[in-house]
Amino acid sequence: MKILRINMGAEGGPKMSEEPMGEYEGLGGRALTSAIVSKEVPPLCHPLGADNKLVIAPGMLSGTIAAMSGRISVGCKSPLTGGIKEANAGGQPSQVMARLGYAAIVLEGKPKDDTLYKIFINKDGVKVGPDKSLKMLKNYDLIERMKGEHGEKIACISIGPAGEMKMAAASVACTDMELRPTRHAARGGPGAVMGAKGVKVIVLDDAGMKMRDPKDPEKFREANKRWVEGLKKHPVTGEGLPAYGTNILANIINEARAYPTKNFMWGTFEGTQKVSGETQAKTETDRGGSATHGCHRGCTIQCSGIFMDKDGHYLTKQVEYETVWAHGPNCGIDDLDTIAMLDRLDDEYGLDTIEMGATIAVAMEAGVADFGDGEAAIKLLKEVGEGTPLGRILGNGAAVTGKVFGLERVPVVKGQALPAYDPRGIQGIGVTYATSTMGADHTSGYAVATNVLKVGGHVDALKPEGQVELSRNLQIATAAVDATGMCLFIAFAVLDQPDTFQALIDMINAFFGSSLTGDDVTELGKSILKNEREFNTRAGFTAQDDRLPDFFKKETLPEHNLTFLVKDEDLDTLFNW
Amino acid sequence: MKILRINMGAEGGPKMSEEPMGEYEGLGGRALTSAIVSKEVPPLCHPLGADNKLVIAPGMLSGTIAAMSGRISVGCKSPLTGGIKEANAGGQPSQVMARLGYAAIVLEGKPKDDTLYKIFINKDGVKVGPDKSLKMLKNYDLIERMKGEHGEKIACISIGPAGEMKMAAASVACTDMELRPTRHAARGGPGAVMGAKGVKVIVLDDAGMKMRDPKDPEKFREANKRWVEGLKKHPVTGEGLPAYGTNILANIINEARAYPTKNFMWGTFEGTQKVSGETQAKTETDRGGSATHGCHRGCTIQCSGIFMDKDGHYLTKQVEYETVWAHGPNCGIDDLDTIAMLDRLDDEYGLDTIEMGATIAVAMEAGVADFGDGEAAIKLLKEVGEGTPLGRILGNGAAVTGKVFGLERVPVVKGQALPAYDPRGIQGIGVTYATSTMGADHTSGYAVATNVLKVGGHVDALKPEGQVELSRNLQIATAAVDATGMCLFIAFAVLDQPDTFQALIDMINAFFGSSLTGDDVTELGKSILKNEREFNTRAGFTAQDDRLPDFFKKETLPEHNLTFLVKDEDLDTLFNW
Repeated sequence: MKILRINMGAEGGPKMSEEPMGEYEGLGGRALTSAIVSKEVPPLCHPLGADNKLVIAPGMLSGTIAAMSGRISVGCKSPLTGGIKEANAGGQPSQVMARLGYAAIVLEGKPKDDTLYKIFINKDGVKVGPDKSLKMLKNYDLIERMKGEHGEKIACISIGPAGEMKMAAASVACTDMELRPTRHAARGGPGAVMGAKGVKVIVLDDAGMKMRDPKDPEKFREANKRWVEGLKKHPVTGEGLPAYGTNILANIINEARAYPTKNFMWGTFEGTQKVSGETQAKTETDRGGSATHGCHRGCTIQCSGIFMDKDGHYLTKQVEYETVWAHGPNCGIDDLDTIAMLDRLDDEYGLDTIEMGATIAVAMEAGVADFGDGEAAIKLLKEVGEGTPLGRILGNGAAVTGKVFGLERVPVVKGQALPAYDPRGIQGIGVTYATSTMGADHTSGYAVATNVLKVGGHVDALKPEGQVELSRNLQIATAAVDATGMCLFIAFAVLDQPDTFQALIDMINAFFGSSLTGDDVTELGKSILKNEREFNTRAGFTAQDDRLPDFFKKETLPEHNLTFLVKDEDLDTLFNW
Repeated sequence: MKILRINMGAEGGPKMSEEPMGEYEGLGGRALTSAIVSKEVPPLCHPLGADNKLVIAPGMLSGTIAAMSGRISVGCKSPLTGGIKEANAGGQPSQVMARLGYAAIVLEGKPKDDTLYKIFINKDGVKVGPDKSLKMLKNYDLIERMKGEHGEKIACISIGPAGEMKMAAASVACTDMELRPTRHAARGGPGAVMGAKGVKVIVLDDAGMKMRDPKDPEKFREANKRWVEGLKKHPVTGEGLPAYGTNILANIINEARAYPTKNFMWGTFEGTQKVSGETQAKTETDRGGSATHGCHRGCTIQCSGIFMDKDGHYLTKQVEYETVWAHGPNCGIDDLDTIAMLDRLDDEYGLDTIEMGATIAVAMEAGVADFGDGEAAIKLLKEVGEGTPLGRILGNGAAVTGKVFGLERVPVVKGQALPAYDPRGIQGIGVTYATSTMGADHTSGYAVATNVLKVGGHVDALKPEGQVELSRNLQIATAAVDATGMCLFIAFAVLDQPDTFQALIDMINAFFGSSLTGDDVTELGKSILKNEREFNTRAGFTAQDDRLPDFFKKETLPEHNLTFLVKDEDLDTLFNW
């Protein structure tokens, strides 16, 4: 495996160079992106400037036959948080890029003008060329163009208009098995950094390349078999997620009375049934779509699906729980078709669905539109795609929108919007929101699992006790998982079934000829967090940035009559291990 | 002297209470506002929330016969920087409020709804009442209304539409001798905090009140006489400022090739002659205005003037150097009438002229309008007053505008825009910009005096050596001056003439019956900075916030071929004394 660097600001046009892994040997995914960003990016640089780097890295096991190994990490200094960022996505690019032999693509520098480039990589090498005809293309149109130019066996990493406009909520899109741009490394604005580098799309074609070879193929195959069996036997990864997708959570979190409604005013939503995973799955199958589908080859969990419009035409992939929540209940909207349209528009423009839903809710509280007005939400999102002044406000996320409209109740940490769990009703996830190196991010340490789903034990969701330790352990484990290229949903099975965790370790050892133990995995997670935390400290972050917004400590969540209860001094112990 | 507190969020409507100075005894102006904010405001509170406080405090010598003692300080947690803020202004309110016996008015809490209040204070007491008819009145119209209701012997402290819309560039306006709202405590958004408190205007009427009495009237009169003589004999305070106002600097700073032009692209402006203080003074007198005028009774420097439009009608006060620069050369605009109209609009809406000029320049670099297009600048500013989406972006300042438009070159420190001196051409002021507790602020430590004007000695403007020590000493001295209620322009005479400095100390001692020395004044300055710095630290500020934007370290200022040269580690020694 090697690292491809492309200096987009070189004299005379982009300049490529390839190098061995060197000091980064053995790293993948988030471990690699965070190591490179932490070592090479000046913490005080402007996120849209020449000194920032966009690092794209498949996981350690991506490009192998290992099930669920299709996540790709995108790292940079975040335009949204000002801190380090790793956002990862599913889809096909991770596997394809790994098979092409690249552990990372690092986009560096900044073009002198606003030329827009396409990067094409296949077995014969790398081509970088300007193509102004791609300007302001939406992601679906862009991918159609790429299919026309390069055939249907490619995988693409791209930005939409939001990334070109350098909006802080802009995502990096990855194509799925059907070559649709539905999988986004979305949080924290990596799309804006890709836009600042002048790169519209990276087209990957692995024709002529093979699966990556394990050191011990026999052991690897055998471990993968145990791995798949473990995933299939756990009720979450074997039943719940395949049948209903992530949005099975809608009813569960609503019942836990921690389902943030109308910009975190309430913890339950009267229209939950209308937007639940169960209703969604039925709608999908009734309309000739599908409720069980994978985002990349080698996925056995199949948490996704295909969402058709009322006329039976493809509209978007199965909208995930977080997106349904963000554009739905959080905005008082209970119509699945409206929510699906908003999801499609986010994918078209290249936007983080969580950030955009949270932002529209903030705008609604500021009086820009009424809660529950789905047409208004669609209109607002279209303004983002068009880059009107209002659209530019919204496209820069909830924190900017709150500031511009003079609002006090703005649910962000480190400038990044809170996802779909109220930290007053699920205290453990509040600890993760507050302390994560990424800003408010449920995937950094999914305490909901243990607070509500009783996976990996049980810690009472409504009490502060034990939440810091829970979040700490989950943050460490998650960082390690994000290095492997594995989909985070494997964690349900890994947390509950020691033999499934062992199968993963065996797979890694068989592939690399190593002899790692569970403790080594923990150490890997810690080392990633340490890199990230140090970057943030050098960027000026302090304990004061590890706090939820004031209103979560002052306003009670009515259904529980609780505020966020974990003490500041306890939050400050999270990274003491 | 006593402290008036008004809890705008009390059950049943605003609740007033008066208390003795207590632990704040002996403090005034910035010393008092920063002491109260630092002690009473939670550093992590939302600037627009109930926990923030707006503290309005005349200086120690305000309300006496001491010449130049008419500055009033406004303090709070800043919506623009997120740190502590003290902005001060001239005009009449400081003297009137001090004669009414108030060392401070503290606005606390937050109304439950959007009711807007008027506060009226005279010898009989304090009245607070709702008046929705005041909503969105511009400052001049508002003051006309107040004159109609309360006669012409009042002084007013008010906000315009920008403050009501809680924009981070919103100012607090103070009326001048002609009862015009031309004097603004502008920087850092105190107007937004006043707006969040629901207070539109504070009307002060000192009929029946007397000048404050010194402990030793004879000594006080005698010291004041020496004080005035000292100010009159110094060439800056006795000649330059009276004749041409602050804008005498236009030619001087342009000749020093540190006159920021077109968003800090250049250090000289081809149209400087057209907007210089000399041209401005001639225009004023030619049109029947005035080039020599004071902003408050008891001013001997008379740096202001009256600017008439082409038809000889009053348009605005003599536009100050910083404002002429911000709306003029920094935006490529060389027309004094356009600049005067922009100044008038800023005063009408209640906006910081420096922030708005810097913001429009950032918007121009982002392509929203062309550099040099005065009509476009007026149109943009009107959008701010109207609160359109674009106007709301701009009204929240340069940092937000830069972020929303994805721009890299955004000249701010701690979120506050740089004033009219390029830190690459006048390195000392760069140290003040970087390290001031206030964000980029020339008045916090005016190193231009010693770097360019050779007041208080001489330190080479183009070299890093000696700048930290210079800025440190000036920041300490300035904090003390800002406590006295004295106009900062006295510093020219005080720095150069030991006997004038002694006259000021004698005046303070005669008034309070104290026996302070020059060292005590220094200690006062240090204690103010310490309060402010500690607040900022508790609010999450670190050394990384004491930095100029990256581009000043990378892009040379063409006329000098220099970047900002003072090292980070030297900046970090500023508060080591």
